[in-house]
Amino acid sequence: MALIVQKYGGTSVGSIDRIRNVANRIQIERDKGNQIVAVISAMGGVTDKLIGLAGELSDNPTEREMDVLLSSGEQQSIALLAIALNEMGIDAVSATGRQAGIVTSGSHTRGRIERIEPTLVNRFLSEDRTVVVAGFQGITEDGMIHTLGRGGSDLSAIAVASAVKADLCQILTDVDGVYTADPRVVKKARKLPEISYDELLELASVGTKVMQSRSVEFAKKYGVKFEVRSSLNNNPGTIVTEEHEAMESVVIRGVSIERSQARVTITGIPDTPGMSGRILGALADAEVNIDMIVSNIASDGMARHSFTMHTSDLGRAQSALKPVLAELNELGGEAGIETEAGIAKLSCVGIGMRSHSGVAAKMFNAMGEAGINIGMISTSEIKISVTVEEDQIEEAARVVHTAFGLDA
Amino acid sequence: MALIVQKYGGTSVGSIDRIRNVANRIQIERDKGNQIVAVISAMGGVTDKLIGLAGELSDNPTEREMDVLLSSGEQQSIALLAIALNEMGIDAVSATGRQAGIVTSGSHTRGRIERIEPTLVNRFLSEDRTVVVAGFQGITEDGMIHTLGRGGSDLSAIAVASAVKADLCQILTDVDGVYTADPRVVKKARKLPEISYDELLELASVGTKVMQSRSVEFAKKYGVKFEVRSSLNNNPGTIVTEEHEAMESVVIRGVSIERSQARVTITGIPDTPGMSGRILGALADAEVNIDMIVSNIASDGMARHSFTMHTSDLGRAQSALKPVLAELNELGGEAGIETEAGIAKLSCVGIGMRSHSGVAAKMFNAMGEAGINIGMISTSEIKISVTVEEDQIEEAARVVHTAFGLDA
Repeated sequence: MALIVQKYGGTSVGSIDRIRNVANRIQIERDKGNQIVAVISAMGGVTDKLIGLAGELSDNPTEREMDVLLSSGEQQSIALLAIALNEMGIDAVSATGRQAGIVTSGSHTRGRIERIEPTLVNRFLSEDRTVVVAGFQGITEDGMIHTLGRGGSDLSAIAVASAVKADLCQILTDVDGVYTADPRVVKKARKLPEISYDELLELASVGTKVMQSRSVEFAKKYGVKFEVRSSLNNNPGTIVTEEHEAMESVVIRGVSIERSQARVTITGIPDTPGMSGRILGALADAEVNIDMIVSNIASDGMARHSFTMHTSDLGRAQSALKPVLAELNELGGEAGIETEAGIAKLSCVGIGMRSHSGVAAKMFNAMGEAGINIGMISTSEIKISVTVEEDQIEEAARVVHTAFGLDA
Repeated sequence: MALIVQKYGGTSVGSIDRIRNVANRIQIERDKGNQIVAVISAMGGVTDKLIGLAGELSDNPTEREMDVLLSSGEQQSIALLAIALNEMGIDAVSATGRQAGIVTSGSHTRGRIERIEPTLVNRFLSEDRTVVVAGFQGITEDGMIHTLGRGGSDLSAIAVASAVKADLCQILTDVDGVYTADPRVVKKARKLPEISYDELLELASVGTKVMQSRSVEFAKKYGVKFEVRSSLNNNPGTIVTEEHEAMESVVIRGVSIERSQARVTITGIPDTPGMSGRILGALADAEVNIDMIVSNIASDGMARHSFTMHTSDLGRAQSALKPVLAELNELGGEAGIETEAGIAKLSCVGIGMRSHSGVAAKMFNAMGEAGINIGMISTSEIKISVTVEEDQIEEAARVVHTAFGLDA
């Protein structure tokens, strides 16, 4: 007998029929003798409908009241799922974020989970009842309702799993698990049986949108092992866990790509302190999200900075940098700006690269043999990212995937 | 500056436009310098929709979960009204039943208000904020969600008014106030400026459905003066309050009628103890709601019992009484049963009748002069009820209304 926390998203509980399906899945676990805590989102569409109602009253509705409004959505779905379970003869009981003891801090509409006080959930479990917990919501120390923002239900599930010391936390979603690459791009991509928190974080940050980073970070912090699996079938998914020695035998866990990138390079920057800060400050003020940053000194003794960003930010970046160029020239520079759209980013991620040398060389060679030119290069401890022409990105992903023996 | 608790029902907040109207009404009070606590219901139709969803999952959904489900309705309306008020520049804040400290006991779907802990509401008021409280819901001592059942929002408003020591509690509804009679029947009916709790209770129990009796009883118990008025106009309504001496100068406060009544008379009951208990017990077991009860001894030394009930209960009453008749005859009776449908009940209510004699005579004379025959008669301290043929009930109401000087 195991204690399992299962998280179901809004799509999984998006209609009465789907709620019944979720109830059936829970019944299967009950029949195996497992105890279940289901953490669920609002029925798909309900949140948007409520946002629409508020929008009719105000262009800028109070965030405190939006939290009260939107948290009603999960209150409905938990009651309905509990009713469906009861109808099947399963002794189930719902718990709002408050009842589940999800204590938050931070701002309205983007609360942070501070801790879980699982007294009531534990009491229900000790009575061998199935508990249906409202995800996405919590309560502040002084009793105000918070929602947790995007991906909040995943976070709730992982936090509850930690608090009730669950044997396993399952994130049931519309993907089958975590793959070595996007199967739509790399036909030979394989589903990973296992991945470390850090690897998933690096993959998530470069476009494999399985989960929000903060949920993975939370799981890592509290050592909650969880499984990402499909809510539509019974296939095993991917276990996300702390890294262990055996994991290092795999050099690269996965390859991910990000399209629609653009590069901005500023040339002729005087090589004096404070220049980078001015440039990055101007971009931050203009709310341009910068991804890769590469900097070096050119033959003329001046510095060059290159950044990547999403193509849609390129115009804003250029406008923001114009006054900075003038400033740099007043300080003795010969600043110019180069821009390039139509590029993409390829990243290889794996904790194994720490203990294996020559990973970058292998990656670059594979691409070179395929005639793919590399633009910028950026590395972290467990990730190597490069930019290539966007029309070559799929081919690049495939050859790198093959080179590291990831093909099925 | 006064502190006013205003209660708005589901119709008053039934659409975004109506929520805006309620916000406008509150603004008018704020502009006068008054502080407002608004106690509101779910948007009209939302509760029925949620009941429908639960009904798709179960014919008999768990009551605990229905409370969780339905209480989400007010959670939405309070947030939306607070957003509407904020948009108008009014510093308003919502409070769920739990946040407003509405502590309940009893069963799910029909909780009873045990007490109010208005700490948070008082804090908001001390900050001069407008508070929007969810009616119809509360929380048990151990943190479970309760709804209060029919008329629950009125009850919430009166309880909150008592707890925050409001200067006035206004029940804003779709009627203008309490009338001396139903204006659709008695054209000359007048709106009462004032009525006592007991009078309203007696009128409510005989068909003038302004409010649920338990809300009036609660107000009486805690001495909460409240006003029943329209949410559609600004006319003064009717103040419901403790009786005071001046009220007794009016003999009859109002006249009310109840149609579709039936009479059952059991004759030939042996005049020994315990007979009434058997008869009434059988009717109670069959869930027949009995209204008037009249009993006397006939010339043959046997007792006769007559009851009135709604016509729809008549069949069930007859079936339930059949075995009782046989029992009575075994005990020496000569029991028979007479039934009569197509009657109606007329009641005169007024605390003034305590100190004025001849009230019954005046009432009966008026009816006699109009050629209206009286069937059963029943009296309480502040009420006289009679039955008449149903097709004479309207005429009866008019002549009695005139006889007691109630006409406009």
